Amino acid sequence: MRPKIYLFGDSITEMSFEEAGWGASLTNHFARTADVVLRGYSGYNTRWALKVAERVFPAAGEAVAVTVFFGANDACLPDRCSAFQHVPLEEYGRNLRSIVSFLKERWPKAVVLLITPPPIDEEGRLQYISNPYMENPSGLPERTNEAAGEYATACIDVARECGSPVIDLWAKMQQLPNWPTTCLSDGLHLSVAGNKVVFEEVVKKLEEVGVSLQTLPSDQPLISHIDAKDPLKSFPN
Amino acid sequence: MRPKIYLFGDSITEMSFEEAGWGASLTNHFARTADVVLRGYSGYNTRWALKVAERVFPAAGEAVAVTVFFGANDACLPDRCSAFQHVPLEEYGRNLRSIVSFLKERWPKAVVLLITPPPIDEEGRLQYISNPYMENPSGLPERTNEAAGEYATACIDVARECGSPVIDLWAKMQQLPNWPTTCLSDGLHLSVAGNKVVFEEVVKKLEEVGVSLQTLPSDQPLISHIDAKDPLKSFPN
Repeated sequence: MRPKIYLFGDSITEMSFEEAGWGASLTNHFARTADVVLRGYSGYNTRWALKVAERVFPAAGEAVAVTVFFGANDACLPDRCSAFQHVPLEEYGRNLRSIVSFLKERWPKAVVLLITPPPIDEEGRLQYISNPYMENPSGLPERTNEAAGEYATACIDVARECGSPVIDLWAKMQQLPNWPTTCLSDGLHLSVAGNKVVFEEVVKKLEEVGVSLQTLPSDQPLISHIDAKDPLKSFPN
Repeated sequence: MRPKIYLFGDSITEMSFEEAGWGASLTNHFARTADVVLRGYSGYNTRWALKVAERVFPAAGEAVAVTVFFGANDACLPDRCSAFQHVPLEEYGRNLRSIVSFLKERWPKAVVLLITPPPIDEEGRLQYISNPYMENPSGLPERTNEAAGEYATACIDVARECGSPVIDLWAKMQQLPNWPTTCLSDGLHLSVAGNKVVFEEVVKKLEEVGVSLQTLPSDQPLISHIDAKDPLKSFPN
């Protein structure tokens, strides 16, 4: 049985198998060593994630790692057009702690890797929500980079308290040149380059805690290890 | 528990989560309804696939569909540089039948979807194997399109005998303009366009036998079904 790496999160996780997505890249990276299992729920905040956690992660499964990537929806402003997704900062931290505890109890040996929400490009969001199908009477973006930053800080605090590794995506992306258009596609979701950042950070963080191609055994003999003169030697009954 | 769709095959399956790969596209397509599980083994022929089938598919799992995509290596010519991967045509058919029987026994209700090997662009293969790291004293390609076509025919015959759906990729791709360079990247493996062909054919064939977004239930409430005025209504305890 191959170990599983679950990806638990919102639309940034659910969309991670779109073109050059970070989930697809992880699956490709771990192709012969671990199963990457998609558990992305578009639009979800930590309040709803916590409600479904028991059903999302049945006791039967086995995990070597879980990425927990929420906060982008919790950080929707409470007085703007996506207010129904908003979760107060203090509750976000509490929910995230509960999710980590739940996963640790489910799989005591699994790495629970937290990922902060990405930064927000408010111009990009305004362009996106200014389409005729969205109701946005205020004319203001539903998310701000400042609010996302507060949720990122809370996420990092939870990781420290729980002894979990964390990717500070909010800070990491803002170090990159022209991050609003380089890393994001609509001010919130990831571009091809943004997906690459998440993929590389996840691989690096998992490697730091011992989950890597070096530590996971390969499933079935690799072609490079099969003796061309006697291939069946590699396949004992 | 979400149903699983296993992808069982050789490198064309193992590489299906590379850029715009058909496996990644399937995962994205079924993101909230089924788990796509990668079981690709680069270089494998049906002889070796049969040897590992018991270990690859533990009895515990549950499947709604399995793609079986072998033949590209079986069809390597027996007197050229990849001869050790060659499996005689008659044995290929027998092995494929055994793989289908094994999967049907494991999961009587699962769809076993066969996929023929793709066509071969011999010019493309020659360019690929003429690199200084490959030993190819004959100066001839290790695969031919004619041989691949014979294995494709055998695959279709097995599908008919077993009552399984089949994608005749060998014929399908050759109907497309400039298929050698449009559909293939190195005379054998799939280009972005070739991956799209496989993805669309798999979705179509699965739909024909009742495995689709219309028939599979969604895992957890979709954001579009959540009442913005009372979101928690969607999450009863």
